[in-house]
Amino acid sequence: MITSPAGPIDLNADLGEGFGRWTLTDDAALLSVVTSANVACGFHAGDPSIMRRVCERAAERGVRIGAQVSYRDLAGFGRRSMDVPPGELADEIAYQIGALEVFARAAGSRVSYVKPHGALYNRTVHDAAQAGAVVAGIRLAAGEAGLPVLGLPGSLLLAAAGEAGLEPVPEAFADRAYAPGGTLVPRGEPGAVVHDPDAVVARAVGMAAEGSVTAADGSRIAVAARSLCVHGDTPGAAELARRVRDALGAAGVRVEAFA
Amino acid sequence: MITSPAGPIDLNADLGEGFGRWTLTDDAALLSVVTSANVACGFHAGDPSIMRRVCERAAERGVRIGAQVSYRDLAGFGRRSMDVPPGELADEIAYQIGALEVFARAAGSRVSYVKPHGALYNRTVHDAAQAGAVVAGIRLAAGEAGLPVLGLPGSLLLAAAGEAGLEPVPEAFADRAYAPGGTLVPRGEPGAVVHDPDAVVARAVGMAAEGSVTAADGSRIAVAARSLCVHGDTPGAAELARRVRDALGAAGVRVEAFA
Amino acid sequence: MITSPAGPIDLNADLGEGFGRWTLTDDAALLSVVTSANVACGFHAGDPSIMRRVCERAAERGVRIGAQVSYRDLAGFGRRSMDVPPGELADEIAYQIGALEVFARAAGSRVSYVKPHGALYNRTVHDAAQAGAVVAGIRLAAGEAGLPVLGLPGSLLLAAAGEAGLEPVPEAFADRAYAPGGTLVPRGEPGAVVHDPDAVVARAVGMAAEGSVTAADGSRIAVAARSLCVHGDTPGAAELARRVRDALGAAGVRVEAFA
Amino acid sequence: MITSPAGPIDLNADLGEGFGRWTLTDDAALLSVVTSANVACGFHAGDPSIMRRVCERAAERGVRIGAQVSYRDLAGFGRRSMDVPPGELADEIAYQIGALEVFARAAGSRVSYVKPHGALYNRTVHDAAQAGAVVAGIRLAAGEAGLPVLGLPGSLLLAAAGEAGLEPVPEAFADRAYAPGGTLVPRGEPGAVVHDPDAVVARAVGMAAEGSVTAADGSRIAVAARSLCVHGDTPGAAELARRVRDALGAAGVRVEAFA
Repeated sequence: MITSPAGPIDLNADLGEGFGRWTLTDDAALLSVVTSANVACGFHAGDPSIMRRVCERAAERGVRIGAQVSYRDLAGFGRRSMDVPPGELADEIAYQIGALEVFARAAGSRVSYVKPHGALYNRTVHDAAQAGAVVAGIRLAAGEAGLPVLGLPGSLLLAAAGEAGLEPVPEAFADRAYAPGGTLVPRGEPGAVVHDPDAVVARAVGMAAEGSVTAADGSRIAVAARSLCVHGDTPGAAELARRVRDALGAAGVRVEAFA
Repeated sequence: MITSPAGPIDLNADLGEGFGRWTLTDDAALLSVVTSANVACGFHAGDPSIMRRVCERAAERGVRIGAQVSYRDLAGFGRRSMDVPPGELADEIAYQIGALEVFARAAGSRVSYVKPHGALYNRTVHDAAQAGAVVAGIRLAAGEAGLPVLGLPGSLLLAAAGEAGLEPVPEAFADRAYAPGGTLVPRGEPGAVVHDPDAVVARAVGMAAEGSVTAADGSRIAVAARSLCVHGDTPGAAELARRVRDALGAAGVRVEAFA
Repeated sequence: MITSPAGPIDLNADLGEGFGRWTLTDDAALLSVVTSANVACGFHAGDPSIMRRVCERAAERGVRIGAQVSYRDLAGFGRRSMDVPPGELADEIAYQIGALEVFARAAGSRVSYVKPHGALYNRTVHDAAQAGAVVAGIRLAAGEAGLPVLGLPGSLLLAAAGEAGLEPVPEAFADRAYAPGGTLVPRGEPGAVVHDPDAVVARAVGMAAEGSVTAADGSRIAVAARSLCVHGDTPGAAELARRVRDALGAAGVRVEAFA
Repeated sequence: MITSPAGPIDLNADLGEGFGRWTLTDDAALLSVVTSANVACGFHAGDPSIMRRVCERAAERGVRIGAQVSYRDLAGFGRRSMDVPPGELADEIAYQIGALEVFARAAGSRVSYVKPHGALYNRTVHDAAQAGAVVAGIRLAAGEAGLPVLGLPGSLLLAAAGEAGLEPVPEAFADRAYAPGGTLVPRGEPGAVVHDPDAVVARAVGMAAEGSVTAADGSRIAVAARSLCVHGDTPGAAELARRVRDALGAAGVRVEAFA
C-alpha cells in the first residue's frame, strides 16, 4: 500500500444535467460514488425539480453540493463561449447560486462551492474579466463568507478567487492527457482523452497517492489537485467512477470532500 | 381629516418587469412611492441584473422586497394559465424565491413576502392544487419561518397560506370595479377598470381610511385589505401612484409596509 | 391471410424530440419502420440541426415529413395545457411549420401534414378555439393548398380541419385501451395503456385489417383510422414498431403513407 | 440639385424587435419611411405575432422584407458574440428564414434578403467560419435562387456571399464616424456616433448623392453603399429617418429598395 503524500482526495462529478423530459447524467449511481456533486442550476441544464431531487439525494448520502454555474445557453448546453459583459455575468452567477441554495437548504445541506461549467470553465482559464465576474458573482451570492472555487490549476479563475479571499480548489482529470508543462492536451488533439479504463484508474491513483501523472511525452509531472473530476454523462461512466474510488481506497487514499 | 379605522396601509406595485434589452415598469419612479416592491424573478420578466438593481434601489429607499413569482413563460409574460403539475410548480416557485433572495441579501435586505403574478395569481384564486403548490414552494424556500403571501381576499391561495401557517395579506385594487359580493368585476366586462384618476384616488382613500368601496351596483361594501396594488406598466402609472399616496397621507392614513 | 377492408395503413411516430445535448427518440431506427415522421419543430423539442438531420434521413427513406407543432414549452415538453390566445397560437403554429419546411425542402421533400403534440393534441380534442387556431395557423403557413391534419377521430380539431377544407386524417393507437364509445381510456385509469407487446401487435393488425378493436368492456368496436401511431420514446419502442409493421405485412395490410 | 452618381439608394431599418409584452422599435412609423425592413425572426427578438404584423404592414406599404437573423440569445438581445459551431449556426439561420418566409408569403410578399443582427453582424465582418455559416444557412433555406446579403463593405460576410453566388449588398451608416481607411470608428471611441441630426442628414445625402463622406480626420472618402441603415430603437429615431428620406428626395436621390 502506498501512503498518500497528498492527503485525502475529493471526487467530483457533474450531476443533474437533464432538463424537463430529458435525462443525461446517472445521478443516483454517481451519488453513491462521488464526494462532491456539481449540480446544474438551470442555465445550461437542470430544472428546479431535478435540482431538488439531486440535492435531496446528495444530502442523504452526505455528498457535498456545489453550484455548477454556466452561461445561459440551454440550446448549446453551455458549451459555446459567450461574450457576456462581466457585470451581467456576475449577476447571472449569483442568480444560479441563489436558486440552488434553496434546494440545498431544504434538503438540510447548503451550497458549499462553485464550479463553472463547459465554455465558462474553459474561458475563465485565460479570460481575466470573466474570471473576475465569476468571483464577483460568488461574492454577491455568498457575501463575506464566500465559497470555495473548484477549477483548473493555473487558471485565472483560481488566481482571481485566491486574490478575492475565496478558497481555490485545484482539480485534476484522470481521463485527460497532460502536456509536460502541466496543462491539459486540448481536446481534438490525438490522445487528448484516455479511453482505457485501466489506465484511467491507474492515473487517478497516481494523481491522488503520489501527486503526479505521466505526461504525453512520457515524463512524470506533478499534479497538485485536491479533487479528481469523474465524468458522468457517458455510458459506463458511473461504473468507471466506482472503479476509481475503489482503487483509491485500495491504495490507501482517503476519499472525502475537500475541507 | 378622516381617521383610518383600518390602521396603516401598504402600497405594492409590480417592478423589474423588463428583460434584457426591454424595459417596462418605471422602477425608479415607483420605488419613490410604494412601500412594497413585487420584484419579477426571471420567469415572466426580470433578468438577474434588473433584479439586482431593483433590490439595491428598494433597499436604499426602505421599500420592502417581495418575490413576484410566475409561470415559466417569457413569451406570454406569465399571463397564460398553464397546467403545471403541483410538484413542479412548487419547485419553480422555490427556485424563483431563492434567486431573488440573493439580490435582496446583497442589497442588505431580504425577500419579505411572495405575490404570484398574472395567470398564476388569477388561477390560485380558485385552483386548490396550484394554490397549495405556491404555498409548498414558499415552504421549500423559506422553511419554518415561511413568508407572508399577498393575494386576493377570499382566494384559495390566501386560505391555503393561512392553513399552512403562512400569513395571508389581502390586497385591494383602487382601479378595479367590485361586484356587490366583494369580488372583482372580471376584466372584459364593461366598467371593470376604473380609468378616471380622480375616481381611483378617491376609491383608494375610501378603501384605506374606511375599509369600504362603492360596488358596481352603487352599494357600499367592505374591503378588508392591508395593501393596495398600484399598477406600474402604463403611461402615467407612477404619477397616479404618487397621487394616491399623497391623498392617503392627506386623509390621515399611514402608508407603510405591512407588519 | 386476412384481406384488409380498410385499404393501406400509415404508420406515424414522433421523431426528432431531442434538444441540443439531449436525445430522446431513436430517430434512425424508427425511420426504417414508419411511413410518416412527426418532426418536432423547436417549441417542445427539436433544434434546427436535429430537424435538418431527421428531414434528410426521412427523405432518403421515402418517409413523409409532418410538422409536430406544439405549445412553446421546452421545460414541460409541451405536455402542459396552456391558455394561449387563439391568434397567438395560430401564429406560433405557422412559425413552426415554416421553420420545418426549410429543412424538408432542403432535403428534397416537403412538409406534408401537421399533427399537434402533447397537451395541444389533447386540448384540441375538445377546445374549439384552440382547434380553430391550429387550423388557422396551417392556413397561414400553407395558404390555399393547405395541409392534412393528423388527429383523433371525433376531435374538434379534425372537425375544424374538415370545415376549413383541410383533409382530416384520423389515427388510432394500438397500445391504448378504448372505451366502448370509441374514445381512449384516459391515461391514469387502470388498463389505459397496453403493455404486452403481443397484444399491441394483435390490436394493430385488427385495427388496420378489420377496422376494429376490442374495447375495455370486451365488446368489439369500429376504429376508423388511416394511420397508426407508434411510440418512439420508450426502450424497445423501435423494435415494437418493427414488429407491428411486420405483422401488418404478414396480414396482407399494405403499409404506406396516407394519400 | 445634385445629380446622384450612385443611382437610387435603399433605406433599411431593424424592425419587429419587441417580444411578447415588450415593444422596442416604432414599426408603424418606420414602415412609412424605409424601403427595406430587417424583420427580427425570434432568436434575439420578435415573436410570431409581431413577425406577422410587421410583414402585413410592410407588404401593404410596399416595403421589402428581409430576415434579420441572429444568435439564439433573447436575454442578450443577440449582442453577445457566441462560439456557435458553423454547422449549427447555418441550421439556425435557415430556421429563422423559414419561419419568417411563412409570414411574408401570407402577407403576399416574400423574404427578399438577409441581414445578420448585432453580434453576428459584427463577428461575420472578420470571422470566416461564421460568415460562411450564414451563407450556408441562406443556401439551405433559399436553395439555388439564394438571397441577397446586406452587410458591411469589406466584410468577410459580403465576400463569402459573393463567392457563393449570392448578391452582396453593401450598406452605410449616416450616424457613424468612418476612419480614413473606410472602416467604422469602433463604438466606445470618442466621436464614434454622430448625434447631431443635421449632420446625420447631411452625411446621408453625401453618401447617397456623391458616394462619399467626411472621415474622422477630415478627409473625404468614398463610401460604396447601396443601402443606408437608419436606426429605429431610440427616441426620435423615426423622425430622423423621415428627415433623412426627405433630404434625399430634395437632393434628387431616388429612394427605393435595392434591385
